[in-house]
Amino acid sequence: MTDTSAPPAAFITPEALLAHWQGHRNLTRRLIEAFPEDQLFTYSVGGMRTFGDMALEILGMAEPMVRGVVSGEWNYSAPGSLPKDEILRRWDASTEQLNTLWSQIPPEKFSEEMVAFGQYPGRAYDLILYVIDNEIHHRGQGYVYLRSLGIEPPPFWERS
Amino acid sequence: MTDTSAPPAAFITPEALLAHWQGHRNLTRRLIEAFPEDQLFTYSVGGMRTFGDMALEILGMAEPMVRGVVSGEWNYSAPGSLPKDEILRRWDASTEQLNTLWSQIPPEKFSEEMVAFGQYPGRAYDLILYVIDNEIHHRGQGYVYLRSLGIEPPPFWERS
Repeated sequence: MTDTSAPPAAFITPEALLAHWQGHRNLTRRLIEAFPEDQLFTYSVGGMRTFGDMALEILGMAEPMVRGVVSGEWNYSAPGSLPKDEILRRWDASTEQLNTLWSQIPPEKFSEEMVAFGQYPGRAYDLILYVIDNEIHHRGQGYVYLRSLGIEPPPFWERS
Repeated sequence: MTDTSAPPAAFITPEALLAHWQGHRNLTRRLIEAFPEDQLFTYSVGGMRTFGDMALEILGMAEPMVRGVVSGEWNYSAPGSLPKDEILRRWDASTEQLNTLWSQIPPEKFSEEMVAFGQYPGRAYDLILYVIDNEIHHRGQGYVYLRSLGIEPPPFWERS
């Protein structure tokens, strides 16, 4: 690339977006912690999936999406069920991996088009935002599950 | 400002972020449409607010937040309850207003620190992302409400 034109304007920088995402991931981790172990893969509302299923989906998408953006290799897998402390252990490992992988993405890559996991076409920023949005979406559903179990969820605005 | 250094790298441009947000707003509008009028301000799960309350909060935050970023004037107000078609009418008016206001924000403003609504300090991008995230969060809760009413919600990935 020998393009010498000005770089595109930023709504947010890559660094700030990662911090924003990790803040969300802190909150989701707190929700997993607050969820009763014996309800994690059994309780649901309205015939929907359990919060454990959703948590494993979120975990299964985050690091593999960013790894795919970095390397072009796409591997999604979510185990059917895990003990809560093993989910939290993998969550923390992903947190570290995301920080490491993120630093390997040159800024111009975020606007490149790719096909995630062999089936989802889009620009990297949209694919990454999809993962974050999907986390917020399902975590919001976890809030309803917790409330309907009589448990007060952690506050939405606390991210550190 | 006479800073002649390179502009910050972009994860996403302001234009693409607005398109992303409006895609989310299309989906939320579809959820409001799908919600039974007689349950909008009466039905809830786990002692939480009604989806009508959440929809009015989302509506009450979006345009006022962006107007605040543009003008420095902050006005939040959400009516207690409205007929569904009036909510949709105001939703569509906001969609237009957001497009108009967005084009008045110079890119460097998104990283400026400000105090939204006299009480929420943060950089403009974080304040705006809070509004979008809050929409996704509560819409996810609306999905549970709809499912528990036996209604199939619109697909999460459809945004156009």
